[in-house]
Amino acid sequence: MRRDELPTPALLLDLDAMECNIATLAAHARATGIGLRPHAKSHKCVEIARRLARAGALGPACATIAEAEAMAAGGIRGILVTSPMATADMLARVARLLGRGADLSLVVDHPDNVDTLAGLAAGHGVTLPVIVELDVGVGRTGCREVADAVALARRVAGHGALRFAGVQAYWGNLQQVMPLDERERRIAAQAERLRSLLSALRDVGLPAEIVTGGGTGTVFLDPATALFTELQPGSFLFLDSCYAAIPLKGNENPFLPSLFVAAGVVSANQPGRVIVNAGYKALATDSGRPTPARGAPSGSTYRFMGDEHGAIDLGDGPSPGLGAVIELLTPHCDPTVNLHARYQVARGMEVIDVWPIAARGY
Amino acid sequence: MRRDELPTPALLLDLDAMECNIATLAAHARATGIGLRPHAKSHKCVEIARRLARAGALGPACATIAEAEAMAAGGIRGILVTSPMATADMLARVARLLGRGADLSLVVDHPDNVDTLAGLAAGHGVTLPVIVELDVGVGRTGCREVADAVALARRVAGHGALRFAGVQAYWGNLQQVMPLDERERRIAAQAERLRSLLSALRDVGLPAEIVTGGGTGTVFLDPATALFTELQPGSFLFLDSCYAAIPLKGNENPFLPSLFVAAGVVSANQPGRVIVNAGYKALATDSGRPTPARGAPSGSTYRFMGDEHGAIDLGDGPSPGLGAVIELLTPHCDPTVNLHARYQVARGMEVIDVWPIAARGY
Repeated sequence: MRRDELPTPALLLDLDAMECNIATLAAHARATGIGLRPHAKSHKCVEIARRLARAGALGPACATIAEAEAMAAGGIRGILVTSPMATADMLARVARLLGRGADLSLVVDHPDNVDTLAGLAAGHGVTLPVIVELDVGVGRTGCREVADAVALARRVAGHGALRFAGVQAYWGNLQQVMPLDERERRIAAQAERLRSLLSALRDVGLPAEIVTGGGTGTVFLDPATALFTELQPGSFLFLDSCYAAIPLKGNENPFLPSLFVAAGVVSANQPGRVIVNAGYKALATDSGRPTPARGAPSGSTYRFMGDEHGAIDLGDGPSPGLGAVIELLTPHCDPTVNLHARYQVARGMEVIDVWPIAARGY
Repeated sequence: MRRDELPTPALLLDLDAMECNIATLAAHARATGIGLRPHAKSHKCVEIARRLARAGALGPACATIAEAEAMAAGGIRGILVTSPMATADMLARVARLLGRGADLSLVVDHPDNVDTLAGLAAGHGVTLPVIVELDVGVGRTGCREVADAVALARRVAGHGALRFAGVQAYWGNLQQVMPLDERERRIAAQAERLRSLLSALRDVGLPAEIVTGGGTGTVFLDPATALFTELQPGSFLFLDSCYAAIPLKGNENPFLPSLFVAAGVVSANQPGRVIVNAGYKALATDSGRPTPARGAPSGSTYRFMGDEHGAIDLGDGPSPGLGAVIELLTPHCDPTVNLHARYQVARGMEVIDVWPIAARGY
């Protein structure tokens, strides 16, 4: 099948572009000597995790236990769950993964959770690697104070069934700060807090083996801190319409758009506009609009028109007919991927494969 | 299982509240003599469609062919697909449904689509009921002019394999207009266009047997137009945080909130705030925030904190502990339902059933 014949709406992955992005990031990692733990919350797909492993990734970062389960079931090693696993259900599922021999590390930000994990690991006769998270400005998870993080690391180290493996520090709120030199300045400020934590950990005899964090928006800036052993970008695979609009180093953005929602024209009865079958349920709505790409005249724009529809305003361009396929560069890629059950994988104009989004949902 | 022990995030349906909403709407339909074609794009669930049929519904309205397929597979009759089926994939799937004897009506807004459907119905040896849509101000699908709609009805009637069944007119953009008397005024203005279409159709010997439209926000106002034979509300089942905030008749809103996302506390290391495991991927983001209900102190508020997380600001209230379940009254219910694979169905505090969201996605 050709990509302009796809049943719509469909999530379309341009394999050439994604492979380029993986090669670009891998070259950056080699040049800077930093490891890669690409975030599976973006792709949620075993086939993509395998390609990343072949490109040298240490393993996937995962945001949910469902992602970790899907990766482990696919034989993927080096799984780091980057959010605290603190509910009874999460803990039971962690236990099941440990029982199956999954190669798993967890992140903590609370002493009670450390103690619970210690009991769980002991019960399975394993030593569980645990990473202490420092909140570096997001205000979400992570220890608020350096002293809290040191105390937590000591608590981890005090449990025989846990191994203190390092520190996570993720400045998610800085990923798309503009201009880029302001992004660099704010990274430098937060890096001071991370540096003081790493120093304090050395002082108590608990040097961090792993220092993990970062995302697509800072992946070319984080190495200058000389603090990280590995980085966790995810969106670099796809370059959504948010990331495509901003530079990532200097004035450049070296990644290519690879992820589209293929939408079909279902109504064409007004000059200058067609209606397509992709709305709130096919495209994330948290971060702006998709951008029409292939199939629509240059300069076309998209407007959300409810759950199932969008309007493509065509300007002076020719109108695609009923049933025509218009590819939309996705807005925020992670929640857009989560809306779909599979990738339609294209090489050029040919759809050559279908990859399940195995870790979709919960 | 009790609802405060649910694995999170989960979509939680309060069955008592939903049954109340169905009874309230059914009583309204009986009192006004108007039929009900409740919209399956909201619930996407065969079990709910069956309950609606038992309460007297004529059948489900469907926005996608996947919804129609799921309803037909569940043995549901009286399916009206409310968006044009105009792509090759949609048409092939319509043909498959007709081949299986599904009880299906379609909506049209373009002469080419009418001709295509005629060929398709003839090929299956069936007479397909077709409804002509008039755009009454949304600017999405539907004929733009009354004259276009009359011409389309005549074109339908000219095909032996099609039966002109009536008119659809949906003022989706008026559903949440405030204040309510402004909503009424704008309905009255658009109703004039619908009235002139119905009159023009009678003049050409094509009286509309079915006049369908309306939604939860206008379901108590539409009968005053004396134009509709049936109404298509969907959100009345759930009363999301958008609809819960507005009156539906006089100063009243007779429906009850029945749909919640149960979220679990995964981080609790700051006074006055906890972090829960429900963000952009568990809750629709197109129409405001969810409202904390059971499990959080009164007056708590929710803020989105990315793909997987939200912050519950607790005010002066006591902090729920790690792992505690907080029920969030959903924002826009339709795209929230579409994010989940199943309803956890509760009667009071007991979870008594699990219903698949069979028509999720595409």
